Amino acid sequence: MTDETPTAVQYGIGPIGSRIANAAHRTGFEFVGAVDIDPEKVGADLGEVAGFGESVGVEVTDDAAAALAADPDVVFHSTVSDVETALPQLLEIVESGANIVSTTEELAYPQWAAPDAAVELDEAATDSGVTVLGTGINPGFVMDTMPAFLSTPMASVDRVTVERVQDAASRREPLQRKVGAGVTVETFERDIATEAGHVGSTESVAMLGDALSFDIDDIEETIEPVIAEDRVETEYLTVEAGEVAGIRQVARGYADGEERITLDLQMYVGADEPRDEVHFESKPPVSVTVDGGYHGDVSTSAVVANVAPTVIAADPGLRSMTDLIPTFTREV
Amino acid sequence: MTDETPTAVQYGIGPIGSRIANAAHRTGFEFVGAVDIDPEKVGADLGEVAGFGESVGVEVTDDAAAALAADPDVVFHSTVSDVETALPQLLEIVESGANIVSTTEELAYPQWAAPDAAVELDEAATDSGVTVLGTGINPGFVMDTMPAFLSTPMASVDRVTVERVQDAASRREPLQRKVGAGVTVETFERDIATEAGHVGSTESVAMLGDALSFDIDDIEETIEPVIAEDRVETEYLTVEAGEVAGIRQVARGYADGEERITLDLQMYVGADEPRDEVHFESKPPVSVTVDGGYHGDVSTSAVVANVAPTVIAADPGLRSMTDLIPTFTREV
Repeated sequence: MTDETPTAVQYGIGPIGSRIANAAHRTGFEFVGAVDIDPEKVGADLGEVAGFGESVGVEVTDDAAAALAADPDVVFHSTVSDVETALPQLLEIVESGANIVSTTEELAYPQWAAPDAAVELDEAATDSGVTVLGTGINPGFVMDTMPAFLSTPMASVDRVTVERVQDAASRREPLQRKVGAGVTVETFERDIATEAGHVGSTESVAMLGDALSFDIDDIEETIEPVIAEDRVETEYLTVEAGEVAGIRQVARGYADGEERITLDLQMYVGADEPRDEVHFESKPPVSVTVDGGYHGDVSTSAVVANVAPTVIAADPGLRSMTDLIPTFTREV
Repeated sequence: MTDETPTAVQYGIGPIGSRIANAAHRTGFEFVGAVDIDPEKVGADLGEVAGFGESVGVEVTDDAAAALAADPDVVFHSTVSDVETALPQLLEIVESGANIVSTTEELAYPQWAAPDAAVELDEAATDSGVTVLGTGINPGFVMDTMPAFLSTPMASVDRVTVERVQDAASRREPLQRKVGAGVTVETFERDIATEAGHVGSTESVAMLGDALSFDIDDIEETIEPVIAEDRVETEYLTVEAGEVAGIRQVARGYADGEERITLDLQMYVGADEPRDEVHFESKPPVSVTVDGGYHGDVSTSAVVANVAPTVIAADPGLRSMTDLIPTFTREV
């Protein structure tokens, strides 16, 4: 990587895609193409659309094949959350011979919920000699890779609980609306619960379970409103006491009926102790706290850009973040 | 690794070596040899000497060549702290064709303080097609690999501070004596300061600096007594107020005159908030705390056993822990 400047295509230039392109531009990737379907962006310069503060001589196109013809080392893919919709895009990239780092949440560990797509992608990537990785701050780091890594110095692990508590008041308005801040419990149950959920918790449970050799055979998710105890005002909205402040989403991984992994994600306005917290029932027992928690958007783009050199150098195939680090192994 | 049981030789069966052998035995390694120079151990069964609770049909020998003739996949090496003394042992193992995971502290990153030995080992390992890794909880995890890993979701890092505060009262008597608990400041300055120091802080600074692309050009270490404010009694000794409770050892890494890395290790009886704490001046800023801190002895043996499969599978040569994980990269 130090001999030659690695080249990249940005595929999807929404809020996260723009941040990724910026991060990769800053860390030294040379962009040779950019793809977006938004007519307002097509034809414009990537540097302008993504806010590099300079033009980079790369015109945004809605024709993926044209952008991929530039033969990039890696494609930063940031379009949708579900693997089914992303699959044709991912296969086209793989068949063009480029490595992929994607923020498609379900791609972080598609083996659980989309096993057929996982096999198809793995075979296509292996055939093309490229590596495919889904990552981000969550899924991809806080609730899966980080606990797996932190378990390295443990003789054994029985159970892992991760709590990620975020104050939605510090995030963009659409996110505050999305988690239901300011609506009644009734409205939440009717309109929000099915839509507000974070995508990727199932994948995080499955990935972490695999890294810890837990033989997870069942994953359940629940979603419920967090009710405001006091009035909260944000830049964009007001939540009265008794109204919904946001969501709490819990994913549980079971092995043989026993709950081994609990991922507890809370995103609401007025959260007074935002944090990422990991508790291990293990030898030795360990609890780790990230004060304030890793920031969602900033951290996702940084993870994507920072792991890209490792992805380019990795063995071909579909990989998960925990494949790329030497984690706890109970059985050899 | 799942197809065949990996084989191992335990080289050095002191307190740490015994724990490593236990951890590896439990995780599924098959021991095919054991080396120690202690006449009390030579001729006895490894399982008996290391306290497996069962014999494993492996006789401890003081003849390394004889043990290595069994052609193990990996040698767990735990003899001395300095690379110079360990070098002939390590070279003999490498030349026999076995991978090495060693707790020799200076081997965690010998490129800084023992560059000639590092080159010699790297060449010998590459020639033999084996991998050599020095690791443990510290150096090897808490003050180097963990902060490097935790920086993955950061857009940039300016400075890192790690504090490891341990309550020596929870450790073995020799360790309490070693850090000077219960002696006067005068005695500490005369007898303890030069002997009590933790080996590996320089290596941790150099390894972390390399992982973060800091271009560290100077490393300084200081050691000073921690003075007891109140009387402390442990199982083994008593420290009066005003006497030495233990040590504080600080290693600082500079790039171009600027302090970029600070590793602050405190080991004293009566430490009231034992912890491992990492502070990043970074985008975004992040602080991470391991409540109570990772336990020294238990965690070292677990790290060694848990990373062994990765070491066996890794590309040949001398490696450091941070080579084995995809960490923060500011320049590609």
